[in-house]
Amino acid sequence: MADQQVVVIVGAGAGLSASLARKFSGAGMKVVLAARNTEKLAELAAEVDAVAYACDTADPTSVQGLFKSVGDELGVPEVVVFNASQRVRGEITEIDPEEVRQAVLTTCFGGFLVGQEAAKLMLAAGRGTIMFTGASAGVKGFPKSATFAMGKFGLRGLAQSMARELHPQNIHVVHVVVDGGIRSADRDRVDGRGDDGWLLPEAIADTYSHLHTQHRSAWSWEIEVRPWVESF
Amino acid sequence: MADQQVVVIVGAGAGLSASLARKFSGAGMKVVLAARNTEKLAELAAEVDAVAYACDTADPTSVQGLFKSVGDELGVPEVVVFNASQRVRGEITEIDPEEVRQAVLTTCFGGFLVGQEAAKLMLAAGRGTIMFTGASAGVKGFPKSATFAMGKFGLRGLAQSMARELHPQNIHVVHVVVDGGIRSADRDRVDGRGDDGWLLPEAIADTYSHLHTQHRSAWSWEIEVRPWVESF
Amino acid sequence: MADQQVVVIVGAGAGLSASLARKFSGAGMKVVLAARNTEKLAELAAEVDAVAYACDTADPTSVQGLFKSVGDELGVPEVVVFNASQRVRGEITEIDPEEVRQAVLTTCFGGFLVGQEAAKLMLAAGRGTIMFTGASAGVKGFPKSATFAMGKFGLRGLAQSMARELHPQNIHVVHVVVDGGIRSADRDRVDGRGDDGWLLPEAIADTYSHLHTQHRSAWSWEIEVRPWVESF
Amino acid sequence: MADQQVVVIVGAGAGLSASLARKFSGAGMKVVLAARNTEKLAELAAEVDAVAYACDTADPTSVQGLFKSVGDELGVPEVVVFNASQRVRGEITEIDPEEVRQAVLTTCFGGFLVGQEAAKLMLAAGRGTIMFTGASAGVKGFPKSATFAMGKFGLRGLAQSMARELHPQNIHVVHVVVDGGIRSADRDRVDGRGDDGWLLPEAIADTYSHLHTQHRSAWSWEIEVRPWVESF
Repeated sequence: MADQQVVVIVGAGAGLSASLARKFSGAGMKVVLAARNTEKLAELAAEVDAVAYACDTADPTSVQGLFKSVGDELGVPEVVVFNASQRVRGEITEIDPEEVRQAVLTTCFGGFLVGQEAAKLMLAAGRGTIMFTGASAGVKGFPKSATFAMGKFGLRGLAQSMARELHPQNIHVVHVVVDGGIRSADRDRVDGRGDDGWLLPEAIADTYSHLHTQHRSAWSWEIEVRPWVESF
Repeated sequence: MADQQVVVIVGAGAGLSASLARKFSGAGMKVVLAARNTEKLAELAAEVDAVAYACDTADPTSVQGLFKSVGDELGVPEVVVFNASQRVRGEITEIDPEEVRQAVLTTCFGGFLVGQEAAKLMLAAGRGTIMFTGASAGVKGFPKSATFAMGKFGLRGLAQSMARELHPQNIHVVHVVVDGGIRSADRDRVDGRGDDGWLLPEAIADTYSHLHTQHRSAWSWEIEVRPWVESF
Repeated sequence: MADQQVVVIVGAGAGLSASLARKFSGAGMKVVLAARNTEKLAELAAEVDAVAYACDTADPTSVQGLFKSVGDELGVPEVVVFNASQRVRGEITEIDPEEVRQAVLTTCFGGFLVGQEAAKLMLAAGRGTIMFTGASAGVKGFPKSATFAMGKFGLRGLAQSMARELHPQNIHVVHVVVDGGIRSADRDRVDGRGDDGWLLPEAIADTYSHLHTQHRSAWSWEIEVRPWVESF
Repeated sequence: MADQQVVVIVGAGAGLSASLARKFSGAGMKVVLAARNTEKLAELAAEVDAVAYACDTADPTSVQGLFKSVGDELGVPEVVVFNASQRVRGEITEIDPEEVRQAVLTTCFGGFLVGQEAAKLMLAAGRGTIMFTGASAGVKGFPKSATFAMGKFGLRGLAQSMARELHPQNIHVVHVVVDGGIRSADRDRVDGRGDDGWLLPEAIADTYSHLHTQHRSAWSWEIEVRPWVESF
């Protein structure tokens, strides 16, 4: 067990996180799943033999506790993926400030907390990959989407700053702009755009996996993925 | 008094805000200065015959109170400038989560609160200009600057989203990227870069003023300003 | 006459160039209009007491001749505006290579030729403003618009490189992204978008004028302008 | 032979193109190498059993001839890589217009010619991948680099326009921003930055290969690669 590489997926759910878990597990890694509600993770955890932790990404103590446990019990993670986010839709004048505050903290400050704890462990070990899941909302501020724009732009700024700071210390930091909806069993597939209008989570996971295995002489800090039929 | 246009400057201090106050006051507008600490504003308020309010930009109640007072006592503002920000410098592993949280809330969530209240008043009146003061940190994530990157990227996302949403409703939203240090009496001018290395706040204010007066057939949502000798 | 400031507008036509000519002429400057076909310029030249030159922007000899004449006869220009462009619409597989080549040379290489000659004169004089008229096609590559994308992206790259090189030498270089159609007498105003869907050329000219007069402690290298109702 | 997939690498040289040739050849594909001077290609062609063609990328007839030959003799290419470029260094006032013109045509118009011929064949076949090799000069205009800025910005505009146009037709278009120097036997490795300051061409080729194999539900149109120690 001591020699098995560890991947931590924070904000784990049924869609992309499940595919990432399967992808990294299939490559021989030990998977740690962290989410606010671990009950939802039970089935996936059983499938990939993962460890599930409860974690509130916007709470420093909770995030610190997660990484303390992982470090103590499983060792320094090779890969950490931050995959949590929260959005509040609505016109700028109608959204509730408290909900907005909470969403920005979950999406952006949560990324910081996870990135900070991951960096602490990885810097001590001298290597590692930290991956942030972004969205097109992080590069384009859409109308009636001020909350998600703040959260995802902020997350992208965090990732870019960390990439500039940590790449020369052998920590690979990546921001993946997922542009479009991810297909999942939870989601009604028939909404007019047809099967081709969705990103397959296993296809996104392939790109995460490639980025993790890039040789450090040719690292990317950002990539965007979208369905072939998606206009952009 | 009822016919005098009103400009509200939030996060008012000695540098850019003072020049904006002088510029808009010189154009015949009534100036409202809002900051956490109004004592610092006394001299400037006296100089430009401004009204000074205490306001914590990260507190919804405080920001709502400010705009309620302005609306009731002076009328719908023609221009609202958000000029507050807070940064935490340091390596990603060493900055304090609580300080980071507070800084992101002040810089980005504070911009939302001010923008939301401004939009409420302006939409009812059918016109207005909302201006956010950004920084190069909002378009480039520098190393050891994760906090400011989150705050200023987030603020830029907010401004872009609001521009897309509010321009067609006749509210002009502008994001000004100030790239460099602003010269002020508070700041030691002699640090090696010489006089030419600073932005003069009155020069920046000229550009804010131009943007406010743009005809709506040719509105800009963003502009960047920097000293001629600044590399970028 | 020797003391009158000179502005050179290359690629002059009925729309933006005419408004720029009126704006700068109204500010007391001597206007030089240059275009392939000077007959079209006669009326405007008479109106603003301008000098009209024939010039093929893609031909080095022609552009050099223009600036030699201006320099010898009127003095070093204070402002040079490059306003020429050519587009070829159509699917990537259907556009004619020779037309594409010519369009890219006119739009982008022409900007280089004008910028180079302007820089030679201005560097000797120690001051000046060079302005390039860009388009949204220069920041976003639209489908069926490969030619314009090449030309306008290339022009933007030129302007950014020249800004970085020349700003510290007191030459202000500006790239204006005009996002939308410019209203003109030539153009049928009624195409469904209504009056509000166009940029008024005199409104754009106001922004050119502001950029020219910016104090060098707070120079912008780029700005975008679009109608308030334009989605972006 | 008829069933062997074909990759065409235009602008083939000793560095990245050689690694791409080895990578795709190793995956079982038939490699076509095209360059102005085929003598330089002899050794590589022998190594990977490639076909070498003489081609001037800025000449429509030459490029059309290349793709006619490939189509007739080997079939529709699965992958086409455009890897040619030419730069002219120097201050804006000192570079020779004719050299600039030639360099822009090679770097940008050459990309168009290759992309156009590739698209014609691929659209008829209903699938394919077109890859353009960009540079940091295509996203940032450096001083004293106006020529390369025009060429590489223009190439990026072309790639983005083609991606938007061709993705929904099942042609994958990719722009790779290579940020830094590529290590090669030709190049003196010891220039102060050490081994870590270079991109290994085989590492870049891994990313080209990944992009080609991406599932179309999660296509990327752009990625940037740079050495871990490179500041950006």
